[in-house]
Amino acid sequence: MKPRALVPGDLISFVSPASALDREKLDFSIALLEGWGYRVRLEDHALDSWGLFAGTDADRAADLMKAFTDPEVAAVYCTRGGYGCARLFPYLDLDAMAASGKMFLGFSDITVLHTPLNRRGLPTVHAPMGLTLHTPREPWVYESLRQAFIGGNPIPDEAPKGTTLIPGVVEGEVSGGCMILMCDSLGTPESVDLAGKIVLIEDVDEFPHRVDAMLTHLINSGQLGSAAGLVIGEMTRTDEKADPTIKGTPWREIVKERVMPLGLPTVIDFPFGHGKQMLSLPQGIRARFDAGAGTLEYLESLCR
Amino acid sequence: MKPRALVPGDLISFVSPASALDREKLDFSIALLEGWGYRVRLEDHALDSWGLFAGTDADRAADLMKAFTDPEVAAVYCTRGGYGCARLFPYLDLDAMAASGKMFLGFSDITVLHTPLNRRGLPTVHAPMGLTLHTPREPWVYESLRQAFIGGNPIPDEAPKGTTLIPGVVEGEVSGGCMILMCDSLGTPESVDLAGKIVLIEDVDEFPHRVDAMLTHLINSGQLGSAAGLVIGEMTRTDEKADPTIKGTPWREIVKERVMPLGLPTVIDFPFGHGKQMLSLPQGIRARFDAGAGTLEYLESLCR
Repeated sequence: MKPRALVPGDLISFVSPASALDREKLDFSIALLEGWGYRVRLEDHALDSWGLFAGTDADRAADLMKAFTDPEVAAVYCTRGGYGCARLFPYLDLDAMAASGKMFLGFSDITVLHTPLNRRGLPTVHAPMGLTLHTPREPWVYESLRQAFIGGNPIPDEAPKGTTLIPGVVEGEVSGGCMILMCDSLGTPESVDLAGKIVLIEDVDEFPHRVDAMLTHLINSGQLGSAAGLVIGEMTRTDEKADPTIKGTPWREIVKERVMPLGLPTVIDFPFGHGKQMLSLPQGIRARFDAGAGTLEYLESLCR
Repeated sequence: MKPRALVPGDLISFVSPASALDREKLDFSIALLEGWGYRVRLEDHALDSWGLFAGTDADRAADLMKAFTDPEVAAVYCTRGGYGCARLFPYLDLDAMAASGKMFLGFSDITVLHTPLNRRGLPTVHAPMGLTLHTPREPWVYESLRQAFIGGNPIPDEAPKGTTLIPGVVEGEVSGGCMILMCDSLGTPESVDLAGKIVLIEDVDEFPHRVDAMLTHLINSGQLGSAAGLVIGEMTRTDEKADPTIKGTPWREIVKERVMPLGLPTVIDFPFGHGKQMLSLPQGIRARFDAGAGTLEYLESLCR
């Protein structure tokens, strides 16, 4: 059920399954994708606004289902994360979405959708949102995304390596994403299942104690300890949220204290997450993770 | 396994299983409890400081175990919440704690401990922390706590009623507590089990979208819909955290939008939570909840 590699002329559908956004924020990404030879279509409700969300749950879900089931669409690209995907489950046909074989891209709140699609056999791409592509980025960021679209190697040589916490080499399916959404899935029918997986972990705008609490939740559930290896990105803007009245513990120290006792191959500061410079990382396909070298190498193509 | 009603001369043990605190913040609560005729003892590590916590995990857990197993102690009272209880599971003997029949009091992060103790048959008390009793409070706040200690009626006539969202009368065991800790338990061996329960829900310092996300997590897990009724307290300091760049949705509207489709007997603004004026509410015993009248009436005493 792998997606087809995109070719020039293919149609990319922009959908907004979570928070609302302004149209002009998409100008850059539309021009970028059109420059690569693709066509871009905004779905009907992509620019709607309803409370905290880009339209009602029913409308956001309808856009997703339309994009996933329209034969003309080659890839479904999320414009923005924020919050809202977890509200959509009553409205989605996840089996049909996975069976569509469409390429699906996004991260952050979109983690909520990666997990069930991967579980149903559709690999997806943990990629920068359409909204944020205009942020000045290194050339390898765009090259990584471009390679994802064509099923190439999404980890350019120029991308930084991860920093080793615990060395070790493992192979497994890449999974995970934004930590708070992984936690928000625990105990639900669409829970993450990290057993034997190479787990991506990143987050943004969390208080230091919440980084600790979420890792503890993943540990207490038995999920984190069952992983094959941990590829930790960035916890963006966490240290700035430390309580100045107590001796703050920088997020990297919190992460080390929690995850190192698990003894799994682990790196930190792998280049993905809510920082500006991030790779586009396929999920739901197998990779070889060398934590000592700080590298992730895909063992198969994202595409059929 | 109900706790014994306290009598003058009984010893109350102050423990700090979560965040650190300053000694002088306890002066008021110690004087209050001594004024009621009780003795107060601070456990060995109650004033320790280790990173974000009141001592190491092992030390905080050792204090809890010492207090719960010391025959001289009649009640174990938590000085402060914050964050830290979920880290203690590897160090605690929850069966021995529950079998001790000690009275146990606290709320907020202490929700993490109420759930497994209630499940093992020990009723506990969702009560103000030792740290915060000095905050100016209505007389019924202190009267409620005093009645909890002696196994009396903890809901004085003077306490405000809840505001009806959906009327209905149900009976069941009182459960729940601070929402984020209920969520952080999902998918773990010590998960909340809300089926058939009268569920207390409150939280503090959460972003509006997180109130939505946590309710959605409890809904997606099937827990919230299985409850008998919902007794919602206050989401303290949530509206102040609304993003000014988007039309903020006040927390009461978010709660209504999420919980009213469940169709359960529900009240909001029941007097408990992180606001100043809060009842001390036993958990793990049965009550009659009249959502139309906005009242909770215990059907049995906290004490044996």
